[in-house]
Amino acid sequence: MLIHVVNPNTTKSFTQKIEAAARAASAPGTKIIATQPDMGPVSIEGYYDEAFAMPGMLMRIVEAEKQKLAGHVIACFDDTGLDAARMAANSPVVGIGEAAFHAASLIAYKFSVITTLSRSIPVIEHNLNRYGLAARCAKVRAAAVPVLSLEDANPPARARISQEIETAITQDACEAIVLGCAGMADLAQSLSDEHGLPVIDGVGAAVGLIEMLARNSLQTSKVGGYSRPLPKTYTGSFAAFAPHKF
Amino acid sequence: MLIHVVNPNTTKSFTQKIEAAARAASAPGTKIIATQPDMGPVSIEGYYDEAFAMPGMLMRIVEAEKQKLAGHVIACFDDTGLDAARMAANSPVVGIGEAAFHAASLIAYKFSVITTLSRSIPVIEHNLNRYGLAARCAKVRAAAVPVLSLEDANPPARARISQEIETAITQDACEAIVLGCAGMADLAQSLSDEHGLPVIDGVGAAVGLIEMLARNSLQTSKVGGYSRPLPKTYTGSFAAFAPHKF
Amino acid sequence: MLIHVVNPNTTKSFTQKIEAAARAASAPGTKIIATQPDMGPVSIEGYYDEAFAMPGMLMRIVEAEKQKLAGHVIACFDDTGLDAARMAANSPVVGIGEAAFHAASLIAYKFSVITTLSRSIPVIEHNLNRYGLAARCAKVRAAAVPVLSLEDANPPARARISQEIETAITQDACEAIVLGCAGMADLAQSLSDEHGLPVIDGVGAAVGLIEMLARNSLQTSKVGGYSRPLPKTYTGSFAAFAPHKF
Amino acid sequence: MLIHVVNPNTTKSFTQKIEAAARAASAPGTKIIATQPDMGPVSIEGYYDEAFAMPGMLMRIVEAEKQKLAGHVIACFDDTGLDAARMAANSPVVGIGEAAFHAASLIAYKFSVITTLSRSIPVIEHNLNRYGLAARCAKVRAAAVPVLSLEDANPPARARISQEIETAITQDACEAIVLGCAGMADLAQSLSDEHGLPVIDGVGAAVGLIEMLARNSLQTSKVGGYSRPLPKTYTGSFAAFAPHKF
Amino acid sequence: MLIHVVNPNTTKSFTQKIEAAARAASAPGTKIIATQPDMGPVSIEGYYDEAFAMPGMLMRIVEAEKQKLAGHVIACFDDTGLDAARMAANSPVVGIGEAAFHAASLIAYKFSVITTLSRSIPVIEHNLNRYGLAARCAKVRAAAVPVLSLEDANPPARARISQEIETAITQDACEAIVLGCAGMADLAQSLSDEHGLPVIDGVGAAVGLIEMLARNSLQTSKVGGYSRPLPKTYTGSFAAFAPHKF
Amino acid sequence: MLIHVVNPNTTKSFTQKIEAAARAASAPGTKIIATQPDMGPVSIEGYYDEAFAMPGMLMRIVEAEKQKLAGHVIACFDDTGLDAARMAANSPVVGIGEAAFHAASLIAYKFSVITTLSRSIPVIEHNLNRYGLAARCAKVRAAAVPVLSLEDANPPARARISQEIETAITQDACEAIVLGCAGMADLAQSLSDEHGLPVIDGVGAAVGLIEMLARNSLQTSKVGGYSRPLPKTYTGSFAAFAPHKF
Repeated sequence: MLIHVVNPNTTKSFTQKIEAAARAASAPGTKIIATQPDMGPVSIEGYYDEAFAMPGMLMRIVEAEKQKLAGHVIACFDDTGLDAARMAANSPVVGIGEAAFHAASLIAYKFSVITTLSRSIPVIEHNLNRYGLAARCAKVRAAAVPVLSLEDANPPARARISQEIETAITQDACEAIVLGCAGMADLAQSLSDEHGLPVIDGVGAAVGLIEMLARNSLQTSKVGGYSRPLPKTYTGSFAAFAPHKF
Repeated sequence: MLIHVVNPNTTKSFTQKIEAAARAASAPGTKIIATQPDMGPVSIEGYYDEAFAMPGMLMRIVEAEKQKLAGHVIACFDDTGLDAARMAANSPVVGIGEAAFHAASLIAYKFSVITTLSRSIPVIEHNLNRYGLAARCAKVRAAAVPVLSLEDANPPARARISQEIETAITQDACEAIVLGCAGMADLAQSLSDEHGLPVIDGVGAAVGLIEMLARNSLQTSKVGGYSRPLPKTYTGSFAAFAPHKF
Repeated sequence: MLIHVVNPNTTKSFTQKIEAAARAASAPGTKIIATQPDMGPVSIEGYYDEAFAMPGMLMRIVEAEKQKLAGHVIACFDDTGLDAARMAANSPVVGIGEAAFHAASLIAYKFSVITTLSRSIPVIEHNLNRYGLAARCAKVRAAAVPVLSLEDANPPARARISQEIETAITQDACEAIVLGCAGMADLAQSLSDEHGLPVIDGVGAAVGLIEMLARNSLQTSKVGGYSRPLPKTYTGSFAAFAPHKF
Repeated sequence: MLIHVVNPNTTKSFTQKIEAAARAASAPGTKIIATQPDMGPVSIEGYYDEAFAMPGMLMRIVEAEKQKLAGHVIACFDDTGLDAARMAANSPVVGIGEAAFHAASLIAYKFSVITTLSRSIPVIEHNLNRYGLAARCAKVRAAAVPVLSLEDANPPARARISQEIETAITQDACEAIVLGCAGMADLAQSLSDEHGLPVIDGVGAAVGLIEMLARNSLQTSKVGGYSRPLPKTYTGSFAAFAPHKF
Repeated sequence: MLIHVVNPNTTKSFTQKIEAAARAASAPGTKIIATQPDMGPVSIEGYYDEAFAMPGMLMRIVEAEKQKLAGHVIACFDDTGLDAARMAANSPVVGIGEAAFHAASLIAYKFSVITTLSRSIPVIEHNLNRYGLAARCAKVRAAAVPVLSLEDANPPARARISQEIETAITQDACEAIVLGCAGMADLAQSLSDEHGLPVIDGVGAAVGLIEMLARNSLQTSKVGGYSRPLPKTYTGSFAAFAPHKF
Repeated sequence: MLIHVVNPNTTKSFTQKIEAAARAASAPGTKIIATQPDMGPVSIEGYYDEAFAMPGMLMRIVEAEKQKLAGHVIACFDDTGLDAARMAANSPVVGIGEAAFHAASLIAYKFSVITTLSRSIPVIEHNLNRYGLAARCAKVRAAAVPVLSLEDANPPARARISQEIETAITQDACEAIVLGCAGMADLAQSLSDEHGLPVIDGVGAAVGLIEMLARNSLQTSKVGGYSRPLPKTYTGSFAAFAPHKF
């Protein structure tokens, strides 16, 4: 099966890191295609960046739908544009934030989240509330590392994340850790070994959830909030995105 | 004081209707400027339209901030881009959805919402949950009238809305009605007279809330989720929206 | 428009402080009348005092209704007798506690409350739950200053409040502060300047909310829990308060 | 042991009915004293009546405390003045509303409440939320019978209550019924027999809860919201209620 | 009346301690019979032990039902098998965990729980959520004392419990303490004296709740989740437990 | 990879149906082993049956752990013994109820559940609350078909389930349907085709979730509520189940 993983920011090195994580967790026979938008922010840190990341990312979703897909993974922990993407696509769409929360809920009573900057905490808490899984999250924490500091191996950034995990274990009574940024995907295994509890990266979890949905022939419901967008004019430079054009 | 009211869709007749409603509810000495984006959907019906309405609307917010403002009103009931706008602006921002929910909470124990299409119900329920006011809402209902059918006086659309209000009163034990679309602003008073309970339009309520904040010298907090966007590159046609450019 | 601000305790110097705060936040053309009951406690610190403050305060509400009013403000942070006042009055009634919570919700993701004594914490938490805004409140804290210590400028009391704000910012990840006593109204601006985040006084916020409701022609719903009290005999010294008497 | 049952309204025939129900459910060796205030409303139907019932009822609580008591029962389903009474008394205080909710929670997964008038529904829902037991209540319903219609055996009132129970069983999937007015105490057994599920009267339940607390030497905690009222002046006709006077 | 108290673990000295606590809190005329299963774990520490304690305990419930009972008390703080027991019995069943939570809710705004081992915290939090009383619990804490260390007077175990109570009072703003293990029943009074707030043992509370239900002729509802088990074959060594056999 | 699917009831034809559903949804290279206990009820309908199904099922979990497993699926919709199994096993354990809820949450805003008998509704609602996904469930409904009526193709049972789905779509505004019994696994596809929205069977979803966890090297956390059971004596016929024996 073919899974489309879209990185909603425009930084290609991030896309490559995400693609590697997706591939590593995929089943035999699954093929990954990874894309990123050509317009929008180089990283997503808060609501404002999210707003400008959505159109470019949705364009990638719409384009990828032309192939026969098992589904799409949105590879930003804020699950940028997830609901809009579910309207635009016929195949299922999973965000890496929600994927990590669902995976954590299956192996731990309570989990804590370690994200990058404190400005992302409200975004993540909003999502936890919408998904219904807020009750399973002990605390959302920020390690105070900017997103792009995670582009490459960065020992000081890893150290700060590790320290925040230690604080979470001591203070939150959490049983698992969710890594709150796609850029942390390569750290999950070593942090789990270091701290002796499950550390979850959402990219691999999301790939597994798309595979699960596909093997059960499950697609996004089209009878309510995720109905196909209604045909209508889009004005100005967004004209090509108008729903009746795809 | 000067209040900027932005209609997030690109339909000018809607902007005019909204401007009139805003002016009618404003205090002596308040001046209203009303705008709409020049790119994006002609109406917002669900998550997909919302995603493409945000950039154009945020551009209007950023431009209007160059004047000395009391604040901004986002005049779509879905409160499109509200969080992003709060990051972008220094003056306060209020959405007409949240404004109507807050107003209803001050005069009724439980209110029901009558929106346009059923696909908007999850959007509104998400917002109610985020604002914390879901417990005050008896039910979100759709009258099955498309947004643009409300552009002008439209007796059949008004009749369907009135009928759904009747159903809400009978079945939901609600004590007030919130009209769930900016295009219904001109119907509030006559529907209230007809049904004998408060019927709330969010445009006027939002103007009053901005005035309240301004007279108390209250502005959006800049210490958490609504901090100023961080300087960074925005790629492609969004380059001009990059945070360090304004 | 004319707004009635009632101080539910019997201390006149408090009424004067409240009247000044109300006037300072009111729109051009708004006139404030401020009253206090002639029977009941000199300050309200917990449920017992509240019970004895209600009858005298409701008498002031009933009397003030004889004039053409925009609405009533109940100027005790516990929102003493708010529901009963809504039954007794035709014009809208807003409590300063709820006003502050609503204002804070419009400019911050999470707020903390600093009240006087710890015995008032459950009262305030009950109200937050009833209004539906508990999810927006990070923590309710007490500065351990008695209500009447706030009658006049009192540097040690202000210092304790300021210290508790500092603790709230550090420990609660709050983005705004709500001052939890009408007697703190004169401290809001200087505490905001000192701590660099919004500090909200409910008196001014409540005046703005009444103005907002009035300009939108919104009054308390009379179809449910806030219906007019039923005619009936009140025995003994409360005979004059019987609903059919007004 | 000695239990004080206070009827918060001033109707003596109600007090007698309540006293009989209390006595019938009490353990061997328990003695019941029943009182009512000499000022306030003849029945409590909504928030306004409640406000004027509290002072007279609290006076009875304070007087009864001069005897060695096992505790107090507040015999109005709205649990009028319960928190204030807990501050005023050293011995425990239980409301018949909360007593019925707790009893129902021990024998059924979900219960529905049948009260008198619809205006009491918000009062009861507020209480369910405060107690934490809202999740156990399927629905609060009103039978549209005024409180004083329950003074004596009243076949039409009983018929309306019975009909509303039938509706609750059919529509709410409830497993037990809570009778939402002290005046319904004499109907519980026959309605249970008629409908084949538990029907709970709060008066008897509250007596049993006071006995339970007393036999376990449990009294109201005095370290937080239920601390003893602070000494202070009460102005005017309430002077005698000032906390330092008792 | 006759109350059956079942200790779900197989340790007889525990049963004796529980029986003494039950007797001490019972009303004149109440007779206590105490039992324990003859198969299953010697103590219950977490979900796995619970699963193996249930069949033996349910056998004791079924046997005891042959007598005319006021009801059953399940004397493990996890309320092991409570729902299954309610299906099996006609007379009411109360767990000591829920009993303690209900009792605490009547005398304090917020309570904290002190249990034995941290692995029992999720079990207790699950129960608080199911009963609806989670909102009343400030925090569930573990004193890190194994269950069987409480078999006899054990000064070091008592010291650790007392220390955790001190931490709860300082950090949780709790107004009462619930002891989270049947083996702590003999410590409640002295810990209450030491710390100056109510300390609640569930065994005595549960006995009082059964007495309350019995004097009000209340039994478990048989119309929903607690209906009589359906007749069916039980295979293997559990054949004798099949519902149609009793 | 090897996945162990345990049917917690003792009916072998059910095990075969479950095994077929598991196999159909599994990835290339996944091998399924299916077992059922040799003691306990022939079907699970409510809490009492659950209690007697757990020991036999846990024995199968413990035995299967001797092989190198990807994980276990508990194939009863009540997720019988799920927490105990997570303590007993090192490899992850997923219940088919929770699996279906998680899958539904990824493709629909709200789902309704159609189970067999109404007595199972509270069990399922408890689980939804524990998992945190109650907010995503519109309603749990019963089709009034006994579990064993689903052993073989049974047109009248299917018709009743289909009818209840129709009612759910009309009344609950649900966007997907979850089938609430392992015995309905073979009906999902045809019911989805018939009703035009996703219909989810938990067996296939659970297999996919185990595969997802395994490919991400995620196992149940052993630092909290799912810690290994402590060594201790199990008395009587359960001696062999004692934790130190495996």
